[in-house]
Amino acid sequence: MKSFESFQSQVIIRNRFPDDKLDVENHVLLFDENLLNLETDEFSPKKFIKSFPHRLGVKGGESLKSFKDFPKNLEALLKKWPEPVGRSQTLVVLGGGTLGDYGGFVASILKRGVNLIQIPSTWLAAMDSAHGGKNALNLEGVKNQIGTFYPASKVFVIKDLLESAPLELKEQSYGELIKMGLVGESKFFKEIMVEKRPAQDFVWRFLKFCIEDKYAVILQDPFETKKIRQVLNFGHTFGHALESHFTWPHGDSVLQGTFFALEWSRHRGDLSQALYEQILDVISQKFERVPAHQLKWYKKPSSKTIKKLLMADKKMDKEGKILFVFLKSIGRPFLKPVLVDDLILEAKRQNWLK
Amino acid sequence: MKSFESFQSQVIIRNRFPDDKLDVENHVLLFDENLLNLETDEFSPKKFIKSFPHRLGVKGGESLKSFKDFPKNLEALLKKWPEPVGRSQTLVVLGGGTLGDYGGFVASILKRGVNLIQIPSTWLAAMDSAHGGKNALNLEGVKNQIGTFYPASKVFVIKDLLESAPLELKEQSYGELIKMGLVGESKFFKEIMVEKRPAQDFVWRFLKFCIEDKYAVILQDPFETKKIRQVLNFGHTFGHALESHFTWPHGDSVLQGTFFALEWSRHRGDLSQALYEQILDVISQKFERVPAHQLKWYKKPSSKTIKKLLMADKKMDKEGKILFVFLKSIGRPFLKPVLVDDLILEAKRQNWLK
Repeated sequence: MKSFESFQSQVIIRNRFPDDKLDVENHVLLFDENLLNLETDEFSPKKFIKSFPHRLGVKGGESLKSFKDFPKNLEALLKKWPEPVGRSQTLVVLGGGTLGDYGGFVASILKRGVNLIQIPSTWLAAMDSAHGGKNALNLEGVKNQIGTFYPASKVFVIKDLLESAPLELKEQSYGELIKMGLVGESKFFKEIMVEKRPAQDFVWRFLKFCIEDKYAVILQDPFETKKIRQVLNFGHTFGHALESHFTWPHGDSVLQGTFFALEWSRHRGDLSQALYEQILDVISQKFERVPAHQLKWYKKPSSKTIKKLLMADKKMDKEGKILFVFLKSIGRPFLKPVLVDDLILEAKRQNWLK
Repeated sequence: MKSFESFQSQVIIRNRFPDDKLDVENHVLLFDENLLNLETDEFSPKKFIKSFPHRLGVKGGESLKSFKDFPKNLEALLKKWPEPVGRSQTLVVLGGGTLGDYGGFVASILKRGVNLIQIPSTWLAAMDSAHGGKNALNLEGVKNQIGTFYPASKVFVIKDLLESAPLELKEQSYGELIKMGLVGESKFFKEIMVEKRPAQDFVWRFLKFCIEDKYAVILQDPFETKKIRQVLNFGHTFGHALESHFTWPHGDSVLQGTFFALEWSRHRGDLSQALYEQILDVISQKFERVPAHQLKWYKKPSSKTIKKLLMADKKMDKEGKILFVFLKSIGRPFLKPVLVDDLILEAKRQNWLK
């Protein structure tokens, strides 16, 4: 049983799985069935999965997070569970963000909490969602309406496993990587600026910084009561609304939300014009990404649609105010409450909305 | 949003509701509809409930704790919720144990936790379940399979409200009262021994001791990781099995489990014969209760049935061992791992089982 005495998970970052750190005989593995189809010269997820005698496969993806189907899913899962379910048992969750959300929630409410180990299989989960204890399910189409804080005791970040995922999943992690490089205390975006390697190599290179920067924030404010943890939300407020509307991948949406937040910071005079241009140049040249509204295929949503999605944000207060994360310079984010109507006006000014 | 920094709820013990401690305009009240039918000269639950503009009624009882129906129930509840659901909101839960379990779980998983206030309406909930943050739902007939630790920020213990409940509910609290008097650090069972008032008056008189003794234990071991909190389980291991089998009220089951634990402690030589007899005399004379197996109507369950129920106990480990709470003397419980088979043998010896 995980106590909440610390949100600091033990993070094991390795090229390959260490032999001695997982009790495969006794742990229960919850894994994404999609992983069975992956295979590289270096690593076979299938073989790894089959090394656990007690294992339960589910299909990863947003539909796994439906709370309506949750009790049925959970009963099916418990039927395959080695009996009896005890609080001393460990649930190992192997998969991307949706598996982590689902498995983390399951671990948190089963017998008031069983021990949890996260093994993220996507770069995005490895750098972000597997750390910090947040999990979430969706209720009636509202994302992340249900959830708990429940940190993993251990998180395994294994390069061989991450490299076995399709390249596009790696590219979907750029948004969170850039975000953390901009707001994290190690300020590693400055290193990205001078980095000579191709962008695909950045991710493993800076993963450790992402993770350390994230723990540095969440340990100061584990339950998001002190507003400190909210700096991690840079790019997320507007990004989430775009994500819900367009059903874009999370990482891509965060990157677009980051463009929005950077431009708003520049426009308000918080971020200098020079640094703003430098940051956008790096993102465009090294990551080949630009604000989506500049692209031909972008179809502007209505203000009304986006406002409704913003109002459903769990961080929105009763008066339609939300703490928005602006950037002063690299490593110096700050929070300021903004009205949803002002956010919409700004998004119109930036050409995101009709 | 309740952080877990402390499991010590602010406990407000009064004869009547204080005027200034509840923000009825802004809190959301979740209440047991059965309370609408109660009324005494001193207090009208109906009037109190109607003072909350935002209120949601549900029928208390074990069926409320069905996890299968939970998402449907929750969606219905959220439809009546003042929009939008925000983490800064407070859910006030008014009712007995099942309401507290249900409402506490709802508060804990909604938006990763909204502020929770408990107003127990039964003596049993007021002395026990409203404190300490445990909540639970039932999955596929297994009691309390699902749940979280989520302490209330405030607990209101109001005599007028508690007295408005039927007398039999008060009598159902005797089991927990006796248990806490025997294991709690204030050792108030010694005071019960010399108490001259009728048993019905004991409950309010000793309620404060029950609550203080409970916090003294749980604050040392909030998440039950250190085995300290398990002393509160005195009478519960065997009591829960009887409760599941006979569907007796919880308090009565705990009292029967207490008889079992006392006799086992005596038989092992932990508890002196003299003190054992004294305790049983007090329970029989002041509370008019005796071990159920001595009564004509008692129908012995089979060992197999009870063993199966014991194996489903979430505190049972993989090897069929459980920490059992024995008593050395008043205020001195101790834990010892026992095998489920030894427990069954002892229950047979005591004439509880076929």
